[in-house]
Amino acid sequence: MSTTPSRVHMAMGFDPNEDVDLNPETAKLLERRDRVLGPSYRLFYREPVAIEGGKGVWLKGLDGRDYLDAYNNVPVIGHSHPAVTEAVTKQLSTLNTHTRYLTETVVEYSERLLATFPDELDRVTYTCTGSEAIDLAIRTARYATGNRGLIISEHAYHGTTVAAAGVSPSLGPNNPLGEDVVTIPSIDTARTSADQVAAKLEADVRAAIAKLEASGAGVAAILLDSILSSDGVQVEPAGFLAPLVDLVHDAGGLYIADEVQPGFGRTGNWWGFERHGLVPDLAVLGKPMGNGIPIAALVGTAAAQQKFGEEIRYFNTFGGNPVSIAAAGAVLDVIEQEGLRQNAAKVGGMLLEGLERIGTTDDRVLHVRGARLFLAMEFADAQGQPDAALAARVVNGMRDEGVLISASGPAAAALKIRPPLVFDKTNAEQLLDTLERVLRGQ
Amino acid sequence: MSTTPSRVHMAMGFDPNEDVDLNPETAKLLERRDRVLGPSYRLFYREPVAIEGGKGVWLKGLDGRDYLDAYNNVPVIGHSHPAVTEAVTKQLSTLNTHTRYLTETVVEYSERLLATFPDELDRVTYTCTGSEAIDLAIRTARYATGNRGLIISEHAYHGTTVAAAGVSPSLGPNNPLGEDVVTIPSIDTARTSADQVAAKLEADVRAAIAKLEASGAGVAAILLDSILSSDGVQVEPAGFLAPLVDLVHDAGGLYIADEVQPGFGRTGNWWGFERHGLVPDLAVLGKPMGNGIPIAALVGTAAAQQKFGEEIRYFNTFGGNPVSIAAAGAVLDVIEQEGLRQNAAKVGGMLLEGLERIGTTDDRVLHVRGARLFLAMEFADAQGQPDAALAARVVNGMRDEGVLISASGPAAAALKIRPPLVFDKTNAEQLLDTLERVLRGQ
Repeated sequence: MSTTPSRVHMAMGFDPNEDVDLNPETAKLLERRDRVLGPSYRLFYREPVAIEGGKGVWLKGLDGRDYLDAYNNVPVIGHSHPAVTEAVTKQLSTLNTHTRYLTETVVEYSERLLATFPDELDRVTYTCTGSEAIDLAIRTARYATGNRGLIISEHAYHGTTVAAAGVSPSLGPNNPLGEDVVTIPSIDTARTSADQVAAKLEADVRAAIAKLEASGAGVAAILLDSILSSDGVQVEPAGFLAPLVDLVHDAGGLYIADEVQPGFGRTGNWWGFERHGLVPDLAVLGKPMGNGIPIAALVGTAAAQQKFGEEIRYFNTFGGNPVSIAAAGAVLDVIEQEGLRQNAAKVGGMLLEGLERIGTTDDRVLHVRGARLFLAMEFADAQGQPDAALAARVVNGMRDEGVLISASGPAAAALKIRPPLVFDKTNAEQLLDTLERVLRGQ
Repeated sequence: MSTTPSRVHMAMGFDPNEDVDLNPETAKLLERRDRVLGPSYRLFYREPVAIEGGKGVWLKGLDGRDYLDAYNNVPVIGHSHPAVTEAVTKQLSTLNTHTRYLTETVVEYSERLLATFPDELDRVTYTCTGSEAIDLAIRTARYATGNRGLIISEHAYHGTTVAAAGVSPSLGPNNPLGEDVVTIPSIDTARTSADQVAAKLEADVRAAIAKLEASGAGVAAILLDSILSSDGVQVEPAGFLAPLVDLVHDAGGLYIADEVQPGFGRTGNWWGFERHGLVPDLAVLGKPMGNGIPIAALVGTAAAQQKFGEEIRYFNTFGGNPVSIAAAGAVLDVIEQEGLRQNAAKVGGMLLEGLERIGTTDDRVLHVRGARLFLAMEFADAQGQPDAALAARVVNGMRDEGVLISASGPAAAALKIRPPLVFDKTNAEQLLDTLERVLRGQ
């Protein structure tokens, strides 16, 4: 692995300085790509994957191989789902305009979307990306509370705008945090007993609140993934986030749930915060919302949004346009019609069981965890230290065997498994068999 | 008009506190909308327009009327163009994934896009919105130069993220500017003789640079629309921006061209900066890029992007995905095949002539200006003061007569005319006839 600061945190990525034997078509495409794309792009895997097609849980490589996609949660209902194609095609040939005219589509979808939320969360504002929705959540929270301070996790990732990157320490040491941003230590459920997780988190949040109050910034919001993804897919024990809501409210701040990764059925619930038995003031939706057509949203209580909304207008030219809305509507349809939340529960359960089985026979596996179709297997060396090198070898080994996953966590020592929700029993078996074989070879 | 701070700057918009006699279907939709959308949404026109379809330059109202669209530059090749529908449908049923895998489509489009730019601008990074691209341009410029200061126009609009809103004073008095942001006075070509525009601008920029150097922030960039849109569509004399490049370079900063509105052929050139005979370090593309499918980009020199790109990775999940790229490819195809840059020159010329003719017979018209299909007619009262009330009456009067335009400028006293590039001679005649009639009735 390269050791330049920027690549340390792209743990299993392609390193152009490393000598990799690429398929000739891939090499040619890579060369053309490097001549035109900006230098901030990175590629997954030691040997990048060139892709020409996708269907369901499968990606078709330029090398002629089929790759099992166990990583992408954007195509939540499966790659190239015909329901999205049909809805988008129909709407594109009818109308695609913005929210400063009245259109039926955005109103109807909003009614449907809000029906999946607790009653308190009754207003939605559309953006195109999760980053934009996080950015808007930060503006909204600061405006609503009159405070500046934000509390986030130590290895959080929330996006790529200046403000969103400012709450994304996982982007690495060269990425500056924003002003008045305070971090709490990453939850480490592999090394913390289940009955201590909530208490430790509560103490850490109290300390962060005290710090922000002492600095004069005050608390605008605590912003956390409902499943702490970049912190290593921290999921259990369900409910550990619950104490934070009163704490942050007492400090005059809001609780913002980042649902970009857990949302839209991955945990078996519609929203990740449901697992914790709490109701956020603001929830940020993104990636799976349109199955790849850009759409994201900020959902929240009217109270949290009122002051910002009255005093500052917000207009996102493409946000909530009829075509993106049509895609999003098709996603809700398919999640319901194909029973994908139920499938997530079923197949997620099988995967968790399989990972646990593998874990019990291999000392290098420190911890296995998961909430339905969002799972992790964490590695440690003989001294109990995070073994990122093994995780990278496993991720790249599985890629070579045709199964796509990734790694996560402060040390990138945890495998991150987050497949489309149409992942079935056979897919789960292939993933587990491949993992077992690859791990044995390391 | 309402006088709450937020609505002052949405000069011709709907005011829910005003008694407007709405079509019953529109009223019902509005009521449903208010119950679900966030409070920061605003609607165009005293009487909002509810829309159910679009084709070419026409929008079909829920009230059964056809509206001539002389405002929207997102559907640059016309509403519901079949070339976009076809390209998107084909790609959606094949593959839609992200840039951390290698895909042919994004490389091929990038080669085509960059071929429309001067040779120096040879790298592109994709986002979903102009706001995101502006935000990335700001991050890039600050990282590249090591300086913090940004110079913008007094009534600029560049977007809606925290950083983009921080360089968008036109969002009104409740919207805080960012730190180290310095404004120069809006160019006022209605009241400045043509031979003084460049000299005044140069002096103002010198003063802004001096201010940023004195504060210790230094100059990261000057960021300006290539046609100063929210400042009142300031277009002439072509070339007035040229002196700024050396000034900002001498101060160690970059020149960022905001091409979101003038780009993609509107001025007869591909890019608005070409009219000024200059080459920016970074150019921000947006609205028309995918004819409504969300896609935007930052194009720039390798030198300007290198440091940021090497040290901080940038990943935009939906940015440059194959479906958005397919839409963008279709837009380039149609602009070329249908000769839309040439059409912009021809029809834009007719419109300018027609607006000038109307202006010479009406004392309330202070100034008429335009660059191809981006035009303005500015009103003043008998004392020479900006007449925003007349502009709002004309915009709303034209809406009632079935022609959609808007208003712009620090006082919102200039009509803003910015139709799809497929606007033809007959459309231009309808616009001019309607304007003449509405203006006479005021």
